[in-house]
Amino acid sequence: MDKHKKTDAMQLADRLFLTHPYSPLSGSVNMDSGTAIANGECLGWAARDPSGILSPYKFSRRAVGSNDVSLDIAYCGVCYADVFWTRNKHGHSNYPLVPGHEIVGIIKEVGSNVQRFKVGDYVGVGTYVNSCRECQYCDDGLEVHCSKGPILTFDGIDVDGTITKGGYSSYIVVHERYCFRIPESYPPELAAPLLCAGITVYTPMIRHSMNQPGKSFGVIGLGGLGHLAVKIGKAFGLKVTVFSTSISKKEEALTLLGADNFVVSSDEQQMKALCNSFDFILDTASGDISFDLYLSLLKTAGVLVLVGFPSEVKFSPGSLNLGAKTISGSVTGGTKQTQEMLDFCASNKIYPNIEVIPIQYANEALERMIKKDVKYRFVIDVANSLK
Amino acid sequence: MDKHKKTDAMQLADRLFLTHPYSPLSGSVNMDSGTAIANGECLGWAARDPSGILSPYKFSRRAVGSNDVSLDIAYCGVCYADVFWTRNKHGHSNYPLVPGHEIVGIIKEVGSNVQRFKVGDYVGVGTYVNSCRECQYCDDGLEVHCSKGPILTFDGIDVDGTITKGGYSSYIVVHERYCFRIPESYPPELAAPLLCAGITVYTPMIRHSMNQPGKSFGVIGLGGLGHLAVKIGKAFGLKVTVFSTSISKKEEALTLLGADNFVVSSDEQQMKALCNSFDFILDTASGDISFDLYLSLLKTAGVLVLVGFPSEVKFSPGSLNLGAKTISGSVTGGTKQTQEMLDFCASNKIYPNIEVIPIQYANEALERMIKKDVKYRFVIDVANSLK
Repeated sequence: MDKHKKTDAMQLADRLFLTHPYSPLSGSVNMDSGTAIANGECLGWAARDPSGILSPYKFSRRAVGSNDVSLDIAYCGVCYADVFWTRNKHGHSNYPLVPGHEIVGIIKEVGSNVQRFKVGDYVGVGTYVNSCRECQYCDDGLEVHCSKGPILTFDGIDVDGTITKGGYSSYIVVHERYCFRIPESYPPELAAPLLCAGITVYTPMIRHSMNQPGKSFGVIGLGGLGHLAVKIGKAFGLKVTVFSTSISKKEEALTLLGADNFVVSSDEQQMKALCNSFDFILDTASGDISFDLYLSLLKTAGVLVLVGFPSEVKFSPGSLNLGAKTISGSVTGGTKQTQEMLDFCASNKIYPNIEVIPIQYANEALERMIKKDVKYRFVIDVANSLK
Repeated sequence: MDKHKKTDAMQLADRLFLTHPYSPLSGSVNMDSGTAIANGECLGWAARDPSGILSPYKFSRRAVGSNDVSLDIAYCGVCYADVFWTRNKHGHSNYPLVPGHEIVGIIKEVGSNVQRFKVGDYVGVGTYVNSCRECQYCDDGLEVHCSKGPILTFDGIDVDGTITKGGYSSYIVVHERYCFRIPESYPPELAAPLLCAGITVYTPMIRHSMNQPGKSFGVIGLGGLGHLAVKIGKAFGLKVTVFSTSISKKEEALTLLGADNFVVSSDEQQMKALCNSFDFILDTASGDISFDLYLSLLKTAGVLVLVGFPSEVKFSPGSLNLGAKTISGSVTGGTKQTQEMLDFCASNKIYPNIEVIPIQYANEALERMIKKDVKYRFVIDVANSLK
């Protein structure tokens, strides 16, 4: 497909690219989605091979078990993981592969034991849909660290041996434990990016006490994760500096997102002036950065958290030892903290900035995501476009 | 000098190599040391060039100021820093260079404002002898992180512009703030290694909550620092595993030092069996290790602390992110914590294992230290050998 030619889907998308505030599409979810095909059958978009190109695909989902809910998917955020998995970047993708792990839907059916949800509720599903529910980590609500491994929302091997299929699809059946209540009045399409991007930045911020007002906080990268880190950081009362490779995001970072400072990371002079000035830095980018440089920007006992996946992490030990600095890693979060994060974002009116797209634009969206050409998260309007 | 020929010094040393318990030399400190040369003149051993070879050297020290104490040096531990600096490994050593920053002495004179010490007290001096005493870190008793930089005990530029000279010398004049009380009944020669090696391992152990009984603790390297980490870890009630490149230290690690487990780090099978089993790992070695491998041994949220200086730190981001693991650096500690550590070691009868040597053996000691041929710290009997 000629990426420069405007397809019907792109023209539709042009009309649909709606950034915050609240898209007019919300509230108009098609409750009938998924009913056009046979009972138990689900319509999705799948990649068939490492080209990663997505196209319509029918498959079945399990019947609703006693602890399950079934939800009609309203929206699904587009995460970089979708690129990574559909293109088999880790080398073990199973095709056909239906991506998507920032899911918001409306419950259409609940199992007999389901306590927390009822038909009609808006719920979210994030990066995993199952875990052992018996280990120490599950007991602590840290299912993402389940000893047996959390079962990923897509391309995971579920307990019944089936390969999980994600949110680029009409409906999904999930154990209620891995579903989250979307706070009332929170626009459902805006909730979608919180289920991966949001929790991925929120978890290490809480863990490393980055919620202390007045502290200085640096955010590397201004994509889906980074722009939420800025907003959450401001809600915590932090002094937020954005590090970006591109000056083009400066104006928006300062005015739209509310950052206090914007630094082009290739500007040596600007970087040097910030030496020993940060309590925390969150690296949301997966690009290769100079860790020695960023460690030098931390104050004594400062913490750099990595949530992206650069090709490697490399630095001189003196950059860490002198000043007793820390590098820590993180991936998404547990169920307790995910609900806490959703409630925190609702209470503090923290909304992702999104571009709503139809499913037919998914391939272009993935291409644009690779080029960092998105402000700041694509969200697929599944209910209104997947037929 | 033929290193294999037994010199007089080595023969003397053979007699003096006393390991714990308590050397018979203690208590026999020569209070007259330093009096053989003119008033204000100090006798030391200095390196004159990057060969690092030490030889006798006379120099002057400042007069005792109102907040200073002057102490006759009884013992001085031999730290790897002494090798590093005398051989100009960092490229900016100032010669003549008198090393030594694990100093224990007896106060012979106190300034008019000195509150905490009196003549005759045993006191310790560690890796720094001055700091700004005005910044946030100094205020918090974290002088090692002084904003203006702590002034190192040797080869540091003091506030009067002079180059500091370390503990391979007959006496030293130090502001009382940077002196520590050696707990009564604690053998002074055994206290010496605590002033650098002890505080270097104690500080990160406290900072990262490694004092929780029952937790699993790995120690990489079994030198001056590592053997103290094992002993302190046991005093904290930890389950201690030693990682060493050499099987030769196994028996002693388990019986003499009290470790629970000993692993030869090159044994892939043994290492693999320990996957996800450590709450904490302390890397006291400066050798190049596989950080990916050691990170894989940490449990979820586990912490690896680096106090040594390998040539670089390099790992895959997945090793850190998956399992939300942490690498943190550390260097010695503040004055408050140094005194706390000394008191803790005294209360818990934690004693370094040392080889007491005369100053004339210092060159051989440094050579042996490079070859890791020491169990586990050399301590120079300054008072009885430096004449």
